[in-house]
Amino acid sequence: MPRRIVIIGGGCGGGTAAQFARKTDREAEITMIEREPYPQYSRCGLPYGISGIIPELTNLIEAPEERLRKNRISVLLGTNVTRVDAGTKTVHAESLDGKRHELVFDSLVLATGAKASVPPIRGVTRDGGRPDELKPGVFVLRTIDDAKGIQSIASKGKRAVVIGAGLVGLEVAEALMIRGCRVTIVEYLPNCILAMVDDDMAQVMAAAIAKSGVKMFTEFQVTDVIGDDRAKGVVAKDRKTGEEREFVADLVIVATGQRGETELAKQIGCSVGTTKQIVVNDKCETCVEGIYAVGDCTEYPDLVTGKATVSGLGTIAVKMAMVAGVNAAGGNECLPRGFLQTRATEPFGCQVAAVGPTTPQLEAGGIKPVIGKVRGFTLPDYYPGRKEIMVKVLAHPSDGRILGAQIVGEDRVHLRVNAFAVAIMAGMTVHDLSRLETAYCPPAAPTIDVITIACEAARLKFSRARPCGPSPRPAAT
Amino acid sequence: MPRRIVIIGGGCGGGTAAQFARKTDREAEITMIEREPYPQYSRCGLPYGISGIIPELTNLIEAPEERLRKNRISVLLGTNVTRVDAGTKTVHAESLDGKRHELVFDSLVLATGAKASVPPIRGVTRDGGRPDELKPGVFVLRTIDDAKGIQSIASKGKRAVVIGAGLVGLEVAEALMIRGCRVTIVEYLPNCILAMVDDDMAQVMAAAIAKSGVKMFTEFQVTDVIGDDRAKGVVAKDRKTGEEREFVADLVIVATGQRGETELAKQIGCSVGTTKQIVVNDKCETCVEGIYAVGDCTEYPDLVTGKATVSGLGTIAVKMAMVAGVNAAGGNECLPRGFLQTRATEPFGCQVAAVGPTTPQLEAGGIKPVIGKVRGFTLPDYYPGRKEIMVKVLAHPSDGRILGAQIVGEDRVHLRVNAFAVAIMAGMTVHDLSRLETAYCPPAAPTIDVITIACEAARLKFSRARPCGPSPRPAAT
Repeated sequence: MPRRIVIIGGGCGGGTAAQFARKTDREAEITMIEREPYPQYSRCGLPYGISGIIPELTNLIEAPEERLRKNRISVLLGTNVTRVDAGTKTVHAESLDGKRHELVFDSLVLATGAKASVPPIRGVTRDGGRPDELKPGVFVLRTIDDAKGIQSIASKGKRAVVIGAGLVGLEVAEALMIRGCRVTIVEYLPNCILAMVDDDMAQVMAAAIAKSGVKMFTEFQVTDVIGDDRAKGVVAKDRKTGEEREFVADLVIVATGQRGETELAKQIGCSVGTTKQIVVNDKCETCVEGIYAVGDCTEYPDLVTGKATVSGLGTIAVKMAMVAGVNAAGGNECLPRGFLQTRATEPFGCQVAAVGPTTPQLEAGGIKPVIGKVRGFTLPDYYPGRKEIMVKVLAHPSDGRILGAQIVGEDRVHLRVNAFAVAIMAGMTVHDLSRLETAYCPPAAPTIDVITIACEAARLKFSRARPCGPSPRPAAT
Repeated sequence: MPRRIVIIGGGCGGGTAAQFARKTDREAEITMIEREPYPQYSRCGLPYGISGIIPELTNLIEAPEERLRKNRISVLLGTNVTRVDAGTKTVHAESLDGKRHELVFDSLVLATGAKASVPPIRGVTRDGGRPDELKPGVFVLRTIDDAKGIQSIASKGKRAVVIGAGLVGLEVAEALMIRGCRVTIVEYLPNCILAMVDDDMAQVMAAAIAKSGVKMFTEFQVTDVIGDDRAKGVVAKDRKTGEEREFVADLVIVATGQRGETELAKQIGCSVGTTKQIVVNDKCETCVEGIYAVGDCTEYPDLVTGKATVSGLGTIAVKMAMVAGVNAAGGNECLPRGFLQTRATEPFGCQVAAVGPTTPQLEAGGIKPVIGKVRGFTLPDYYPGRKEIMVKVLAHPSDGRILGAQIVGEDRVHLRVNAFAVAIMAGMTVHDLSRLETAYCPPAAPTIDVITIACEAARLKFSRARPCGPSPRPAAT
């Protein structure tokens, strides 16, 4: 009898798990259940769909039904899982049209993702609506339908307030700016993107935002969404002075993070960890045999700190899904012992990429990193079109091991961070990486790349961690 | 008494050695002797000076005399070293104006570089000229003056033949094309840039050349430069058919490699190795105490093959010069045990980058690499402007250790190769690198980067080199 694999969630995690399950077992019966009416699409692409850089939101769909059919992967779209019976290994689900489904499984993959986390702001929900129902004019950005809602209001000249200056907040703020909206960002913390990079690096982004004409207010806490039937603005309190300030808006975007969808997992008996997300081992298996979990609803150790972490990154969801898909189909794959959390964004013409913990994250774990930070250029001094770029590397104070790196600049930032990611995986020190021979040609990169200069700057702060031993001279001939 | 450091050669090797000597010893007397009339400039930038992308050739000068003065580095330009007396540690030199110099040294750095290697083609030199004197209309590209000579003839509509389709040959061919010349490339080997990449990757460049309108004839041996007083073309023999073919030309560029300048070194008693270049240890010291050598006139082990290699790369010359400069000034720095030979170019809109030996180079050493080769895209499928890119990774057949990598494509090629360079330095396998978390955001890179897909493709050719062990499931709570 063929193996029965059920996957709950049809995003990049579920979709990838289905593909890798199929690759592993050509005979298995694979069924994917998705609440939304769309097959797998790129959530990270949504801001570019809103802005119009990607002409149609449906272009973001990555797994057209035709391909799924070809791979014999059944998909139930617009279908909610109502209950999982772990004893009888049965998933109960119901489609929007009222149709009920009972699916027996040998392996189950939970790829339930996350939902946007909305803080308790007065007036953010609709009076008399469901507890989660946002007031008209208030949006989160998680789904194609969210993006459609935003597009329906965000026309030229409209005023938008974005709550939260993390990666999603900035990307949607830029998209709204491109659409011609007047955009204000309100952030609780002292700077934008502090989950990605240190404050000094975030300042480069803050300057790019200021230059774009988008206003950003940091250390402001939004207390109220104003407007009766629909949002007309927000009230925010200056956390330094306590003063209140009103921001008029035609639409309000709440971009204050996300929370994994773990209800079903908890109901099944899957344990959750310190971050309240599902705990999995390096096979992506939960504590319940045959039940796997991947992506935004799980936690997994950070490679550098060893601490359980929720990444929220599509790259990691996909890597977990590859492993879970193979294992759910009887294969044997495993994850590395931790994730690097390589991350990138580039709103407002400012490219940012980082890997590993930030300085505050390291300090919270009792490590005060040695820092190498340099400004340099993307191309040789004499070559036209070079751009400034800033590189910061964080090294372990005891041995110079690279723990993290952050890069910001106008150009050629993202791929540079990958070299640091490899170095962290390999346990290399700033001394090691300072010797890297980087690719050089005048139209592409300088002779000595700024990434190695940053490592050299950090290395010089160590008192000869690795002196050179004596070397015999070459023999005379 | 201050230490006396003499540096012969004022290119990127000599100039960098001088700087690092100064950083190491603030009191030393440092003198640099350069045959050319220009202080340190970028040879790699010369093609972009010829094309006009860089408006003036003198923009390529990287160490203006003012900076040298500030660092108290004396420079004798237009000065030839006539003899080095190793016994009395004296350098004898003579300037173009006839002035003679005697410089006593405690440390000597040989940064004599290389000269273009001109094959024995009939008629390539001037009748009755010095043995090395090229016929008018025939050029090599090594110096600013070479570039000026080429510019003086290469105007719109002129016909140019470039002999040699290596990195320099292609870059100068592109520069001539940009100036409006009708360009033909004649290459002895079956394809262009075979010292950089394998034939299959070189084909992408060959296609780009064909698309540009520049003609390339491979497996043709140039036998004659025709024209009495000045070059009027070349005769080349088809190596497959033996047929001769004439190519009319207003200028002929010989770009068939280079040969280190080792005369002085040999005179001093520095030993040369299998490649006929100066042998140095990891301190960059020759077999003669206190005499160092760097750059194009030296050989050094390749990190992967362990074989002595002449790289001809500016990046390596600079790295050697940093070490030699520090050590010549009494410091203690050392080179890694071998070089990666990371290399890059991008003529004709085709970006090429590579690291480590090519397949034929590995095979010559008895290693038949396992290959992972994939085509992919620079950006997600749905994002506008993505370009195709081809990645090839070479792994050791016994353990999957990465030995080399090659990337070609229209965009975002060069920085991708740096991740492979780090992986080779660290001794990582294709299995390890297939798990790399690369930086992802839609405008910058796809979720799963093509470099990891290439590693995965290679990994699948190994029969489970590293099976996953058993993993306990997480504890239930």
